[in-house]
Amino acid sequence: MSDFSSTKIKILQQPTRFEWVEQAIANLDTILLDHSHCERKAASMALNIMFRYPSWTVLVRKLTAIAREELEHFEQVNQWLERRQVALAPLNAPPYGKRLKALLRHQEPDRGLDFLLISSLIEARSHERLGLLGEYCPDRELAAFYRGLMASEARHYGVYWLLADTYFDRDIVQSRLEELAIAESEILSTLHPEPRIHS
Amino acid sequence: MSDFSSTKIKILQQPTRFEWVEQAIANLDTILLDHSHCERKAASMALNIMFRYPSWTVLVRKLTAIAREELEHFEQVNQWLERRQVALAPLNAPPYGKRLKALLRHQEPDRGLDFLLISSLIEARSHERLGLLGEYCPDRELAAFYRGLMASEARHYGVYWLLADTYFDRDIVQSRLEELAIAESEILSTLHPEPRIHS
Repeated sequence: MSDFSSTKIKILQQPTRFEWVEQAIANLDTILLDHSHCERKAASMALNIMFRYPSWTVLVRKLTAIAREELEHFEQVNQWLERRQVALAPLNAPPYGKRLKALLRHQEPDRGLDFLLISSLIEARSHERLGLLGEYCPDRELAAFYRGLMASEARHYGVYWLLADTYFDRDIVQSRLEELAIAESEILSTLHPEPRIHS
Repeated sequence: MSDFSSTKIKILQQPTRFEWVEQAIANLDTILLDHSHCERKAASMALNIMFRYPSWTVLVRKLTAIAREELEHFEQVNQWLERRQVALAPLNAPPYGKRLKALLRHQEPDRGLDFLLISSLIEARSHERLGLLGEYCPDRELAAFYRGLMASEARHYGVYWLLADTYFDRDIVQSRLEELAIAESEILSTLHPEPRIHS
């Protein structure tokens, strides 16, 4: 794996390869539209997890804050779309989300742990890739926007990890995280032909 | 129907009867817990509608703002629960939501219209009932909180109605709204035995 980026995210098994950056900066409008969908999905994911564990007080408090931030970012990304005259539109999702979801175990409490760790990995990968856009995006203002988002996004994967660590034994968290992180990097090992945040 | 309340919501076919107020103020902690679930569900509903109609720009913008406000209210209600030492917990939903959902037609564009109008009715009913709590709640500070929420909640049912009016012909909106409003009042004509915002 190449070592071109200053953004290294510890929990990811493999860093993003440069071919993703090339695909993304050649298709900035599509990436921005997909990013909009990602922010809305991230807010939904936080709400869905709260819905499943309504009595986990710390989780509810932390995920409410995350959902609020994701919706704020969703609005900001949509303002960028408007500014670049890109119409809101549906977009096929890459296989990433569906393949990660397939890793969720069905029995509790395993399922709860998997929800938190998969969310943590998705946030970590998004954080890494927004960082790459912040470094390599040729539109300076848009690059600055990505770097700005990163500052607040940076906490999200940490929050999901911390919640896992709050409700589960650390050794169980660590070993499951390692399994899931290997799978997450494997899913991204072949570049999806359509430009997406998680292609 | 009695005329005890100063809060009259035009789009509702029948006002809430006083037996609901009596049930609610005798079970304030349960009502507050149910209210917390309602705020989270209202945020989810806004996100789900956006997810179905991702290219309706005005809808996406307006519902993002609603979802953000609902999450803010969710946080505030949860702070009230904490203050009253009521633990977060799951709570059986009354039949209200399920019976309204059963009225959604399956074909588009009917389904889109029904989503907006049913959401508008739910918001209108919530607004009316929070207003009643603001009038009759014996805890003065909590009553003031409910009145404070109303001020910003007041717009939500208007926004859903306005979105219906933006995307559909007004005569179609009006006749369908009337049908749904009659059904909504009918659903609430028998008091649900468990105290809920929509019992």
